[in-house]
Amino acid sequence: MSEPVPQAAVSDEPGRSAKWNARRDAIIDTSARVFARGGYHATGIAELCDANGLGKGAFYHYIRSKEELLAAIHDRVMDEVMLGADRVSEAGGSPSAQLAMLGDELLDVIHRYPDHVWVFLHEFPALTAERADQFRGRRREYETRVEAILRSGIDAGEFRDVDPRLTALAWLGMHNYTYLWLKPSGPVSARDVAQPFAGIFLRGIARSTR
Amino acid sequence: MSEPVPQAAVSDEPGRSAKWNARRDAIIDTSARVFARGGYHATGIAELCDANGLGKGAFYHYIRSKEELLAAIHDRVMDEVMLGADRVSEAGGSPSAQLAMLGDELLDVIHRYPDHVWVFLHEFPALTAERADQFRGRRREYETRVEAILRSGIDAGEFRDVDPRLTALAWLGMHNYTYLWLKPSGPVSARDVAQPFAGIFLRGIARSTR
Repeated sequence: MSEPVPQAAVSDEPGRSAKWNARRDAIIDTSARVFARGGYHATGIAELCDANGLGKGAFYHYIRSKEELLAAIHDRVMDEVMLGADRVSEAGGSPSAQLAMLGDELLDVIHRYPDHVWVFLHEFPALTAERADQFRGRRREYETRVEAILRSGIDAGEFRDVDPRLTALAWLGMHNYTYLWLKPSGPVSARDVAQPFAGIFLRGIARSTR
Repeated sequence: MSEPVPQAAVSDEPGRSAKWNARRDAIIDTSARVFARGGYHATGIAELCDANGLGKGAFYHYIRSKEELLAAIHDRVMDEVMLGADRVSEAGGSPSAQLAMLGDELLDVIHRYPDHVWVFLHEFPALTAERADQFRGRRREYETRVEAILRSGIDAGEFRDVDPRLTALAWLGMHNYTYLWLKPSGPVSARDVAQPFAGIFLRGIARSTR
């Protein structure tokens, strides 16, 4: 279990005040809602300025381009997802307990950021160069966390000898796909979903009969 | 087990020749590729005509509008998905065997139609009125098939007393989400994925210890 180093959110801009970053976050969140409704490509800067109640100059003071905004929408969510993964590794416990807790944390974020998830899952091909690399890198980093828990469970004899990569993809699909139906205003909470999902998945990969 | 009635694919136009329908299918497939690369909203009829080697008049002889094309891209895939579900119910067998076979059939379709799946999963909010209703109806119909297998397994004492709706959503997420990484040109076949996925899911909901 590695000790996570406390750090500023990746989506924070270095050298800016907390107030500036909070204002920028609010712009990112409002813009995610606008993109989710109208589409990333179809939505122009003018519309984003209107939705945020900002003139063009003020808007560009926080966000340099539409593509930067798309990357920031992803980083907002991935910051929280990775913080959740850090809490899981801090908490320790058996691989089964860690995987269940990771599912809890992930669904909590998806449940709170449905617009952000919708936008970046659908529009990530619009990211270019370093932004595309960072997007892939951060997603890969999270997948590696899932795989590491699976490997530790296999090594400990707690999980069957499953393929860690394919099993991580099964776990991620089951959880990530909830973005299509798990809504803040909906009838079920993230926890209502996370617990039965963990029940299925952990039995599914358990080594011992139970 | 109900006897499926043989019928023309939903995406076939009534009263048209097989040749006309085959040509239309080819246009749908090419256009799905174009939309997947360039985006549905950003792609105009002129570009679709070019990609299909057709003049505007000839194109409109097969497809009446961009929205009709989007609906047809979905129907192409759902026709095959439902045919697969029909084969499963024709084959019979235990609920476990049926669920495994359903996963096989579903991943086979996703594997063969990555562009179509990408386009309709991302662009379905562009469907309006009856087309939106039909989209939702056909998706719901398939979900009902999954739930029915789960219910029959619970009734037979083969599956635990899981929530059929939530469990169907878990199963669908695990399988549907493969559209992001299961590619025709990729290193793994649909079957390579379907078998371990069934292994996880069936153990996950099994009633008896094994």
